[in-house]
Amino acid sequence: MVKEHKSISSAQNPLIKRILLLKEKSRERKKQGVFVAEGLREIELAQKGGYSIETLLFCPEIFEGNPELFTTKDQSPEYISLSRNVYEKVAHRGTTEGVLALIGGKDHALGKLRFKNREPLILVAEAPEKPGNIGALLRTADAAALDAVIIANPKTDLYNPNIIRSSVGCVFTTQIGTGTTEEIIAYLKQQQINIYAAALTASESYAECDFKGSSAIVVGTEATGLSENWLQNSDQNIIIPMQGEIDSMNVSVSAAILIFEAKRQRGF
Amino acid sequence: MVKEHKSISSAQNPLIKRILLLKEKSRERKKQGVFVAEGLREIELAQKGGYSIETLLFCPEIFEGNPELFTTKDQSPEYISLSRNVYEKVAHRGTTEGVLALIGGKDHALGKLRFKNREPLILVAEAPEKPGNIGALLRTADAAALDAVIIANPKTDLYNPNIIRSSVGCVFTTQIGTGTTEEIIAYLKQQQINIYAAALTASESYAECDFKGSSAIVVGTEATGLSENWLQNSDQNIIIPMQGEIDSMNVSVSAAILIFEAKRQRGF
Repeated sequence: MVKEHKSISSAQNPLIKRILLLKEKSRERKKQGVFVAEGLREIELAQKGGYSIETLLFCPEIFEGNPELFTTKDQSPEYISLSRNVYEKVAHRGTTEGVLALIGGKDHALGKLRFKNREPLILVAEAPEKPGNIGALLRTADAAALDAVIIANPKTDLYNPNIIRSSVGCVFTTQIGTGTTEEIIAYLKQQQINIYAAALTASESYAECDFKGSSAIVVGTEATGLSENWLQNSDQNIIIPMQGEIDSMNVSVSAAILIFEAKRQRGF
Repeated sequence: MVKEHKSISSAQNPLIKRILLLKEKSRERKKQGVFVAEGLREIELAQKGGYSIETLLFCPEIFEGNPELFTTKDQSPEYISLSRNVYEKVAHRGTTEGVLALIGGKDHALGKLRFKNREPLILVAEAPEKPGNIGALLRTADAAALDAVIIANPKTDLYNPNIIRSSVGCVFTTQIGTGTTEEIIAYLKQQQINIYAAALTASESYAECDFKGSSAIVVGTEATGLSENWLQNSDQNIIIPMQGEIDSMNVSVSAAILIFEAKRQRGF
């Protein structure tokens, strides 16, 4: 049985204009509580991660699967077919996949976090700026099956298209909290999670540190490092010993070295 | 004493055209044996790293230092002043530093490599594609003070402006060799350096591996991993245990985890 879907063939359609705005403006994503994800795998990961697929837009000329695959007993997205010219106007990747979705954002309040492990391992990143770095952090967090990633003083919302893309969908597979540095420090202390703050001024090597208990590994920006608040409220400030001429590692690289040392100590 | 320098105020000047071509074309860089670096720190690092500064171009309106600071007893670059409009035409970063240089390329033949340590620690990357990833690898190599980085089957030359920039000059502080995979395997065996090939199909965890002897850590591309030749000629294939949904880490992140485990075992 071929079902009829609503179809759009004009780029002037209000929904198309809305999608373009949502892709571009963090403010609109926050105001409307929805964001745009593109690509079959990303949308599948979002659904698996408990996100609500509100509208699925597909270009029948490109997308060969069954677009209704996102209907479940709990969810029934609206399905809309797009002409090729309209699809190409809204799709970042041009014509590679033929499918995108409007997805409801999640509540990233700290109080919503639930940890898989009794002694959780958490990454906190303060004010990360580049979407590519945030994407790489989330890929590492997924591979390490971290209990959570917490973004302190976020500079952008998580649903920035460049973050979704550079995380290859790990933004949906990892539990993420956000808050101010003050809120997060209070939260971690209340949860009795040890704070290990990475700092170039620290004297203790990360390799001497015991990450087997509840641990939050905290990293700052490449430009300015962590704010003083973290350094003064940590249980231990730690450093990655470096012996080069420049000693400037990428923030996602430094975070991964620390996270996987903790994983090693915990026997993976 | 104010010295007079040759000056260029026309974008049609043949040297200006040559610089633009050198920035754009790997082929031209190879043919001419020179490349373009921009920024005071990068040029200083290149000189310190034993590169020959052939021509220094500066915009007096922007650059406030003494441009002749690159003259040493062994080197006497040609100094040329550029008008602002010409400088802005050749400078990638716009007007941020006011200085760029034509620099002679090095010979990256394997036979030229000299190791600081009797039991060297080396990173080999096979066919890395993205300049940003190569830059991040080189930053990690600098911080770890690796004996060398070897690029197998390079997809671009090392003097691509995006590699220089994303490495923040670490392309000049790290000893780099290039060659085909076959040449590098033969070289490492002849030097009696153990080959540890990172592969998703490996069963031995990198954390169980002893990197204290002469070691080459070998990583492939994110898309296809290492070629069969590496996997069959390695002393040990190793894996980073992952427990996520996607298990896709950035190549520079994976390499850093392996390198710093080796550093940890060696006591930094």
